[in-house]
Amino acid sequence: ALEAKENGIKKKPSSESVINLDHGDPTMFESYWWRMGDKCTITIPGWQSLSYFSDVGNLCWFLEPELANEIRRLHCFVGNAAVENRHIVVGTGSTQLFQAALYALSPPDAPAPVNVVAAAPYYSSYPAMTDYLRSGLYRWAGDAYAFDKDEPYIELVTSPNNPDGFTREAVVLNRGGGKLVHDLVYYWPQYTPITSPADHDLMLFTVSKSTGHAGTRIGWALVKDKEVAKKMTKFIELNTIGVSKDSQLRAAKILQVVSDSCRHSGSGCESENFFEYGRRIMTERWEQLRDVISHKDLFRLPEYPLEFCKFAGEFTEAHPAFAWLKSKEEIEDCERFLKGYKILTRSGKHFGVDTKHVRVSMLDREDTFHLLLERLSAMQGHEREE
Amino acid sequence: ALEAKENGIKKKPSSESVINLDHGDPTMFESYWWRMGDKCTITIPGWQSLSYFSDVGNLCWFLEPELANEIRRLHCFVGNAAVENRHIVVGTGSTQLFQAALYALSPPDAPAPVNVVAAAPYYSSYPAMTDYLRSGLYRWAGDAYAFDKDEPYIELVTSPNNPDGFTREAVVLNRGGGKLVHDLVYYWPQYTPITSPADHDLMLFTVSKSTGHAGTRIGWALVKDKEVAKKMTKFIELNTIGVSKDSQLRAAKILQVVSDSCRHSGSGCESENFFEYGRRIMTERWEQLRDVISHKDLFRLPEYPLEFCKFAGEFTEAHPAFAWLKSKEEIEDCERFLKGYKILTRSGKHFGVDTKHVRVSMLDREDTFHLLLERLSAMQGHEREE
Repeated sequence: ALEAKENGIKKKPSSESVINLDHGDPTMFESYWWRMGDKCTITIPGWQSLSYFSDVGNLCWFLEPELANEIRRLHCFVGNAAVENRHIVVGTGSTQLFQAALYALSPPDAPAPVNVVAAAPYYSSYPAMTDYLRSGLYRWAGDAYAFDKDEPYIELVTSPNNPDGFTREAVVLNRGGGKLVHDLVYYWPQYTPITSPADHDLMLFTVSKSTGHAGTRIGWALVKDKEVAKKMTKFIELNTIGVSKDSQLRAAKILQVVSDSCRHSGSGCESENFFEYGRRIMTERWEQLRDVISHKDLFRLPEYPLEFCKFAGEFTEAHPAFAWLKSKEEIEDCERFLKGYKILTRSGKHFGVDTKHVRVSMLDREDTFHLLLERLSAMQGHEREE
Repeated sequence: ALEAKENGIKKKPSSESVINLDHGDPTMFESYWWRMGDKCTITIPGWQSLSYFSDVGNLCWFLEPELANEIRRLHCFVGNAAVENRHIVVGTGSTQLFQAALYALSPPDAPAPVNVVAAAPYYSSYPAMTDYLRSGLYRWAGDAYAFDKDEPYIELVTSPNNPDGFTREAVVLNRGGGKLVHDLVYYWPQYTPITSPADHDLMLFTVSKSTGHAGTRIGWALVKDKEVAKKMTKFIELNTIGVSKDSQLRAAKILQVVSDSCRHSGSGCESENFFEYGRRIMTERWEQLRDVISHKDLFRLPEYPLEFCKFAGEFTEAHPAFAWLKSKEEIEDCERFLKGYKILTRSGKHFGVDTKHVRVSMLDREDTFHLLLERLSAMQGHEREE
C-alpha cells in the first residue's frame, strides 16, 4: 500500500520545477478519492476474469454488466445524457471509441475515404488519430467551418469543446451525407452547466474526465443505431479483443460511489458529493486564475455565459478542464513565452488555430496549480491600473 | 465476492449444451488460480492510478515498472526469451501489439503498403487485423510460402504455431527488404518444450496464454531496436493513450506468483508450480484426446517430436493449446460435421487451408473438455481393429 501510495501521489514540485500542463492529466481528483478511503477500493482474486467474455448474450459481448448498470444509473442521476434505448459500447478510453465510431460510420465500399471534420479550435489529437494508419475508410479533412465539399463526411462535435470549453453544435450544413459523433467527455457538472440530457445518435464519455481515473482507460459510447453499435464492437474486437475486465469492474465501483454520493447530497454532508466537490474546486481555480490574469495585460481568457444547471439547481457558468489562453499584442508564440517561465502548455497551432493561443490544463494537483498562479503573477506585464 | 464467483465460474454444461471450442478461451487455468486463493489477490484503492502516466522517464511511458520487472524475472526463470538489452512495450493484449508492430515496421513514406505474410496454416485473425482499416501502410498478402514478390514485406512467425502447434521459423527467403515479427504467445512450458531462449528482434507475449488471464488484456513485446519500440509506443498512444494500469498491476502480481511458484518447485510442493500444473493437465488432455481419436477412423492429429525441454529438464513433446484435427476421407467439411454433434470449432478455411481441418480449443473448463471426449467417443466411425 505504501508503494502504491508513492506511485499514486507525486512528490511536491519545487519552485524550480518545470510544470507540465500540456496534457489534461486529471490528478486534481486524487484528493477527493483519498478522502473516500476504502469506499472505493476493489479487490480482485486471482481466479477472476480469465475469460475473454463478459456477457455473451449482449451485442457488446465484452461489456461487464455491472459497468453497464452503473453507467445508466449515473447518467440518470446527473441528467447529462439520454440512456433509454441506447446500446452501450465500452472502450479502452474514449480514444478507442472515437476510432471505433469512424470505422462504424464509414461506408465500407466507398471509392474514397470519408471526410472527418471538426470546427477549429478542435482537439489536437483528432488529426493524428484519424490519419496515423492512412486508412482507406476515412481521412482528416480539417476545420468543419471550411468544409464545403459535396462529399460524405463525419463531423466531430466536442461539447464542451476541448480546448476552449464552449458548448457546441454541428456546424456543417447537412446535405444528407453527414454523420455526427458527439464527444461529450467534458459534459459533467464540475465543468459546465448541465442544461438538458444530451440526446444524439452517438455520444462518447470516459471516466478519465468524469471521475479523474485516466489510468483505468475506460470509456463508453451511447449508441442509438444497433448496426453502428455492432460495427463499433467489431472494431474493438479486431483492435484489442475487448476491454480490460479489471478496469471495467473498477470503473463500475467508482461510478457507483459517485452515484451514491449524489444521492446523499443535500443531507448535510455536501462535501462528499463528488460533483459538488469538483464544482467547488474548479470554481475556486478559475476565480484565482482570472484574478491573476486580470492584473496583467498579457493574456485574455474566454468568458462563459451563465446558464441554468439542472444538476446544481442554480445558474452557473462553465469552469472548463482547460484554460484557453490568448496572448496579447507582442507575444507571438504563447507556448514559447510560457516555456520561458517553466510552464509547458500546448500551442494553438495543434488545435488548428494560431500560436497566440495555448491550452493549459486546469486539472493538475494543487501544488502544481499554485506554481502556475505564482509564475503568472511574477511575469513582467503591463500592470493594469485599478 | 459471491457475485464475482458466479461471474467467474460458469455453470456446468449439460449433456445437451452446445460446446463452444471455436475460441481459445483459457478458462482451464481457473482451477489453478482457485487453489492459489488469496496469494494472487490484488486490492486497488480509489485514489490509485488516476494519472495517464506510469513511468515518464521510460521510452514506454505508460508501462508500470512493477510489470516490467516481473516480465523480465519470469522470462529468466522460464528461459523462453532473451530479455537483456530489450525494450518492453506493454499492450492491450498481444493483438494491439501486433498492430503496433505493423505500424512500427512499415516504411512511413512507401508508395504502396508493405506486404504482410504468414505461412499457412496461419492464425485466422491475422488477415482481418491487418486489413480492417484498409491501411495505406500495410496489407495482408497471404501465405508466406506463396510470397514471391520482389517487394518489402513483414513476415509473421508464430511459434508454436496457432492453429497447429508446430515450432516454426521464417519461410520467406530474405532478399533484404524483409522484417520479422515473432508471435511467441504459446512459447511456454505447458504447451511446448522450451529448447532455448528465443532471441529475435521483435517478440510478442501475453498473459492470456501464459497464465490464462485473457480478461485482463495485457500483452508485452520485447523489442531490440529502440526506434521500433518508440514507434510501437506511439501507436499505442494514438490508439488508446496507454494501457489499463489496473490490469498491469494485476498482471504484475500474477507473474510474480508464477515466478515464485517456479522458484519453490522441486521442494516437495511440486503441484504448486504453475507450469508443472499446466504441463500435467495438458499432457492428460492430449493423452485422452489421442486415445479417443485413435479408436475411430474419423480424424487425424499432428504428431510432435520429442525434444529436450530445458525448463522441465526432460524430453517432452508439445501439448498445444489447440487440437488441429483433420477429418478422413468422406468428411469434406469438418466444422459442419462437428457442429452436428454440438461441438463448435473453427474451420481450416479461416487459417488459409482446407475445410477438412478444424481448430479445437484444448483450454476450456474440465466439464466442457469431458463433453468433447464423450461426444467424440459416441460418433459413428469405422471402429479400429485393435
